[in-house]
Amino acid sequence: MALHAGVDLRATRIDGHRLMQRLAALGEIGALPGGGNARLALTDADKAGRDLVVSWMHELGLEVRVDGIGNVFGLMAGRDDVAPVLCGSHIDTVRTGGCFDGNYGVLAGLEVIETLRDNGIVTHRPVAVAFFTNEEGARFAPDMMGSLVHALGMPLADALDTVGIDGATVGEELRRIGYAGIVPLPAVTPHAFVELHIEQGPVLANEGVRIGVVESVQGISWQEITIIGQSNHAGTTPMRFRHDAAYVAARIVVAVRDIVKTMGGDQVGTVGAVTLQPNLVNVIAASALLTVDLRNTDESLLQHAERQLAAVLDSLEGAEDVTISRRPLARFEPVVFSPRVVDLIERTARQFALSTRRMPSGAGHDAQMLSRVCPAAMIFVPSVGGLSHNPAELTHPDDLEAGANVLLHTVLALASEGIEA
Amino acid sequence: MALHAGVDLRATRIDGHRLMQRLAALGEIGALPGGGNARLALTDADKAGRDLVVSWMHELGLEVRVDGIGNVFGLMAGRDDVAPVLCGSHIDTVRTGGCFDGNYGVLAGLEVIETLRDNGIVTHRPVAVAFFTNEEGARFAPDMMGSLVHALGMPLADALDTVGIDGATVGEELRRIGYAGIVPLPAVTPHAFVELHIEQGPVLANEGVRIGVVESVQGISWQEITIIGQSNHAGTTPMRFRHDAAYVAARIVVAVRDIVKTMGGDQVGTVGAVTLQPNLVNVIAASALLTVDLRNTDESLLQHAERQLAAVLDSLEGAEDVTISRRPLARFEPVVFSPRVVDLIERTARQFALSTRRMPSGAGHDAQMLSRVCPAAMIFVPSVGGLSHNPAELTHPDDLEAGANVLLHTVLALASEGIEA
Repeated sequence: MALHAGVDLRATRIDGHRLMQRLAALGEIGALPGGGNARLALTDADKAGRDLVVSWMHELGLEVRVDGIGNVFGLMAGRDDVAPVLCGSHIDTVRTGGCFDGNYGVLAGLEVIETLRDNGIVTHRPVAVAFFTNEEGARFAPDMMGSLVHALGMPLADALDTVGIDGATVGEELRRIGYAGIVPLPAVTPHAFVELHIEQGPVLANEGVRIGVVESVQGISWQEITIIGQSNHAGTTPMRFRHDAAYVAARIVVAVRDIVKTMGGDQVGTVGAVTLQPNLVNVIAASALLTVDLRNTDESLLQHAERQLAAVLDSLEGAEDVTISRRPLARFEPVVFSPRVVDLIERTARQFALSTRRMPSGAGHDAQMLSRVCPAAMIFVPSVGGLSHNPAELTHPDDLEAGANVLLHTVLALASEGIEA
Repeated sequence: MALHAGVDLRATRIDGHRLMQRLAALGEIGALPGGGNARLALTDADKAGRDLVVSWMHELGLEVRVDGIGNVFGLMAGRDDVAPVLCGSHIDTVRTGGCFDGNYGVLAGLEVIETLRDNGIVTHRPVAVAFFTNEEGARFAPDMMGSLVHALGMPLADALDTVGIDGATVGEELRRIGYAGIVPLPAVTPHAFVELHIEQGPVLANEGVRIGVVESVQGISWQEITIIGQSNHAGTTPMRFRHDAAYVAARIVVAVRDIVKTMGGDQVGTVGAVTLQPNLVNVIAASALLTVDLRNTDESLLQHAERQLAAVLDSLEGAEDVTISRRPLARFEPVVFSPRVVDLIERTARQFALSTRRMPSGAGHDAQMLSRVCPAAMIFVPSVGGLSHNPAELTHPDDLEAGANVLLHTVLALASEGIEA
């Protein structure tokens, strides 16, 4: 397979300066005083961001399609009217988001198309760039809503009826901002999908690796654990008579770390929330509520972690004579990306002499929804300090440019696939 | 030494029925709908309770003295005008208190005096019963305020200026309810002090022991510990890059239990309060605030526990690369009661064929303040289920009666001390 059908790799590069200008221009919409962005899905700020990106799509002569959930696709025709190669991401943000999360993948997609146009390259397949509605889920649950609806994983009517944290519904807000599109689902049936994104974690930055080749998205297991102990006086209650919910909660937190450490590999585990009652210095806690977040790229290993945790809870319940109950908050199986697209991304990066690392994504991304309907994979670039969902989110310009060049040549290769020999 | 100077032990007993009637009558003032009492210090309910007890003192023909902090003493003259034997406790309660905490010691003291009078017993020394102002500290800090001022451990002016949780001052409220007394401090200089009290813990009830002989009050060390870690994404942050404040907090909670378990003896330790930021399921905690309550009857052992904890904090700070700081919230050295009075209580109880157990008090009591100025000790009776500061607080009538009889004969023996042979 020819990677890029006769295109000179060194000559065909994206314009890093133009990419940075577009990122800056989009970052001015919903800008926060100290830096970063607030463009919650389907707000006025999101509309303004959408309008800007759509205006760039029109400037590039793309065919713009908007579907019923407000996903926007910009298509450049290929030599043949076949399934397009799709790239893109999202442009909504969390309430105190950075300028790169999502935006980078969408604007790098525009840059891919503009570079092809500037170089007079007409691909076999159409090339398209998309931004998907409400990826963050910060206003409307679930997150990744637009790509989930695109993949027919959620009925459009249900998505439109979703009520947000401010009482508005997705459907009303889409109509209000003018993005209730009329193109039937799916507006595009891609040949393949590639999402370029900042890592949102510290691995690449800490290891000095330029390109993350994302093979998978971790499966997620969220549980809420309630411990009912017995409230009592911290001074007058001998240790042997205690049923201390705070102590049991602490043992669970330490056990989560121990389970994860013993398993190694991609397994991660976090207790981020613990709430004690009555939470007083001199009263043994009557109850504790805590959450456990377990993630793994391998479903059987994730289940193993869940079983290990359940055994710890059983053992603590008996040893401390407390009542422990569990409630699942979320459970998603891991997603494995297309090995073919993963290999292609890795080879492309290496041809640019960029260091690479195969890795899972710890966060959810639109690509995992697209992988239900076409071969898909992701490209990560380093996040300084691993920071994300934070106004201080930063990726260096040379990394942004490198990632966009890997995207360009990955898309080019995919757009050549299926040519009759 | 004659324990009770010719008094027939079997014949001279308190009237259990009368004691229960007085407890019930006092319990009707500030009664809570489901049981229990709310008579916060110096409120209208406290005034009504005080008025009732003072009316009983007058009925018994006692000389009533009220000092500047509102402590009330009822004195029955002895054969000689020497230092009286004092008993008593407090009648203020926490917001959702029981009917026995404090009240029992005061009303049993009235019962001691009425029993002496009914039996025509005139003691060598005067016998007095007191209730001290604001023992609970639920409205005004510090707790044990009245007995502390009585022992000249806090200047009266400072106590009167104390502002409560509702903005009122102790001095204003004392004047408002008519208990800003004029008797100079100390209104009584006791020969000895004995406080009868419910245990407020489970030891006696669990062991089936009738009388607790309280040798000491635990020293208290309260610390607030702040852990500054690094907030990060629970999915994208590998375990080795984490600085998880929740995990470090959990390790401290477990370490407190381990330190206490290893030390054994009277050492207890509690983490009752833990607060995480941002306290979200999928965010590694940026910071944790927790309290540690350590208590021991031996100051050197309490210091040992504090040093052990400090070593754990140092080690965790390095291992997890977080910042840990400490702030002392309270620190009281242990109080050792008079061995002579402790022995007397134990012998007295055994003469009634009551099972006894020497024990420390885990909670603070007025007796620890009185022990600064005279020989003092305490008598405990069992609390059902160890419950206290709780409307469900309960001590069985036969235990209440037994404790009051031990108080009676302990006071009688002390009131005979110092007679010329």
